[in-house]
Amino acid sequence: MSAPGAEGRVRLDDLPLRDDLRGRTPYGAPQLDVPVRLNTNENPYPPSAALVDGLAEAVRVHAGALNRYPDRDSVALREDLAAYLGHGIAPAQVWAANGSNEILQQILQAFGGPGRCAMGFEPSYSMHPIITTGASTRWISGARDDDFGLDPGRAMAAIEEHRPDIVFLTSPNNPTGTALPLDVIERVVKAAPGMVVVDEAYFEFARTGTPSALRLLPGNPRLIVTRTMSKAFAMAGTRLGYLAADPAVVEALLLVRLPYHLSTLTQAAARVALAHRAELLGTVDTLRAERDAVVAWLRGHGLAVADSDANFVLFGRFADRRAVWEALLAHGVLIREVGPPEWLRVSVGTAEEMAAFRHAMAAVLAAHPATPPGTPGGPDDLEETQ
Amino acid sequence: MSAPGAEGRVRLDDLPLRDDLRGRTPYGAPQLDVPVRLNTNENPYPPSAALVDGLAEAVRVHAGALNRYPDRDSVALREDLAAYLGHGIAPAQVWAANGSNEILQQILQAFGGPGRCAMGFEPSYSMHPIITTGASTRWISGARDDDFGLDPGRAMAAIEEHRPDIVFLTSPNNPTGTALPLDVIERVVKAAPGMVVVDEAYFEFARTGTPSALRLLPGNPRLIVTRTMSKAFAMAGTRLGYLAADPAVVEALLLVRLPYHLSTLTQAAARVALAHRAELLGTVDTLRAERDAVVAWLRGHGLAVADSDANFVLFGRFADRRAVWEALLAHGVLIREVGPPEWLRVSVGTAEEMAAFRHAMAAVLAAHPATPPGTPGGPDDLEETQ
Repeated sequence: MSAPGAEGRVRLDDLPLRDDLRGRTPYGAPQLDVPVRLNTNENPYPPSAALVDGLAEAVRVHAGALNRYPDRDSVALREDLAAYLGHGIAPAQVWAANGSNEILQQILQAFGGPGRCAMGFEPSYSMHPIITTGASTRWISGARDDDFGLDPGRAMAAIEEHRPDIVFLTSPNNPTGTALPLDVIERVVKAAPGMVVVDEAYFEFARTGTPSALRLLPGNPRLIVTRTMSKAFAMAGTRLGYLAADPAVVEALLLVRLPYHLSTLTQAAARVALAHRAELLGTVDTLRAERDAVVAWLRGHGLAVADSDANFVLFGRFADRRAVWEALLAHGVLIREVGPPEWLRVSVGTAEEMAAFRHAMAAVLAAHPATPPGTPGGPDDLEETQ
Repeated sequence: MSAPGAEGRVRLDDLPLRDDLRGRTPYGAPQLDVPVRLNTNENPYPPSAALVDGLAEAVRVHAGALNRYPDRDSVALREDLAAYLGHGIAPAQVWAANGSNEILQQILQAFGGPGRCAMGFEPSYSMHPIITTGASTRWISGARDDDFGLDPGRAMAAIEEHRPDIVFLTSPNNPTGTALPLDVIERVVKAAPGMVVVDEAYFEFARTGTPSALRLLPGNPRLIVTRTMSKAFAMAGTRLGYLAADPAVVEALLLVRLPYHLSTLTQAAARVALAHRAELLGTVDTLRAERDAVVAWLRGHGLAVADSDANFVLFGRFADRRAVWEALLAHGVLIREVGPPEWLRVSVGTAEEMAAFRHAMAAVLAAHPATPPGTPGGPDDLEETQ
């Protein structure tokens, strides 16, 4: 088992790896150093000088106690997050971790596990099945409609058939950008036999009037709404995800969280960002306008485009999307090859970055024309949906 | 299942919690605000003004890119950690995470799981079984000798009997302080059918000449040595754990790590701490001297004391250790009720803190005399061991 390979190099397969991991490759978009990075749904606006000052000052204040463990329960941060969320949510209903990925992993550890199963409606966030199976929980892939929406009748039937211990709803959905109506979420919560996780990582980008699942928390102790500061708050490097749910859900997660999982610096930085929320969320309107502009531009060029309530846009369809992705990269524009086979996803960047994307895309389309909307084999007339 | 309790409050038991978590309480020592905190093996020396400046400056440099995700592979940090470890270790052999707890969890996710088992020799670090069972892996408790050492013949027999997929060795061991001879570790590595994790969280405090298991890495691709910056480096609030192993082990962990698990701020802060290693590790000699002094003082007062290569001391034996713990707390001294039933653990603090501990302990011993060493029912003549 520990015999080295031909050149004396031990290979991964020489190790006693868990069987279900054999042959896998690590998750993650390529981290390439290119001029225009529109591949991981980051917010393109860096922190202002005032926010950088605030962060450095907070670190200066807290660094003097870095020899001590952090507040294990992140009390002050949870108070600030609860105040931000509103909806009458108390700090005891909030929990935070290193990115919403860790939040999701803790949920799986508490409510999933061997003999249990979790269901999502795909295409959706690809970490949901990875975190599920990583927690030795069976993954059940439900289907979205051709327009990437979720038909309630179809969702109810899938839940009735599989009786999942955890249901994932993603709104707005990644990589399609699709927001779910509140009544669909409510029907799923009522029908599901176990926990329901509404992943609202992109909620702040939703079109005006889109209600949050936070409204459904009262009286629904099996509902969990997850959020992140990586997107609208422009704090991807800080790694701060959080949830709101019944206090009993937080008590459950205390049983599985690693003690002191959230560093003093992360707690402090997140609080500074929340204090600067006006500045940070001030980028959201700009990004929504850029998003709507790129949707219109792509449609104007004869492409199929999914309606988007997020800071990214899914567009297609391409017989060879890899060729399109590579051609854009050759123009210095990095987007993401993700989602259904004929589609690509572009994150919404600054006005300059989106101009560069459009410029590159116009050139690339000449060599790689897209399948016109309405052609059999793909979603019809996506422009008309929702 | 979602029916609220008598006062309308949902209880944890009302939720569809995983069966094996029911009735559990969250892990963690009480975080109490007392004058003398000697309960979680923190380093009592806060960062210097120069280090605080360095941390604030690093945050200022990196904060401008916090809207972007961190380097997913922590390349620069792993280079610095490899340079610190020496022993010819390359960056590809190093992996870092949010505390060594997350490192251990990733190891369990890659090499443990349903149908697999992990073994440790107890009393030892109580997170080992918690992280093991949290990853749906069976825990097998092997025994240490009466003097808290590990007899190689006994360890071999336990490994032969259970054929564990993962073996944990802890050196120096928490909560006993016991370091393992290198030949014992080597025999375990040769005999174990799966991975062997040597948890060296407290290694820097070991007495001069104690060899690290890092020496055994060449030719042993199933050996993993874990470390932390929480103890000797006095960076508990930063949450930085790491490991050294064969590069194939790091490849395995890439399959299970949550993407972007380590924040930009954590990576930057850890690198600053490594750059200030001379200052930080300069506290180690002082702490070792205080440790040896408190061992001598406790023995001088007729107590049984385990030899310690760490920054804490296990002492006893008390018919009612809880009463002793509470009496010390009443004197403003917080220690830890952990380890075998008649023993208590005190972390090594500053000279002033240890004076306060001795002063309180002298008063407490008058009311709660300890069982003299050599009395049947406990380890004999611990002063003479090792």
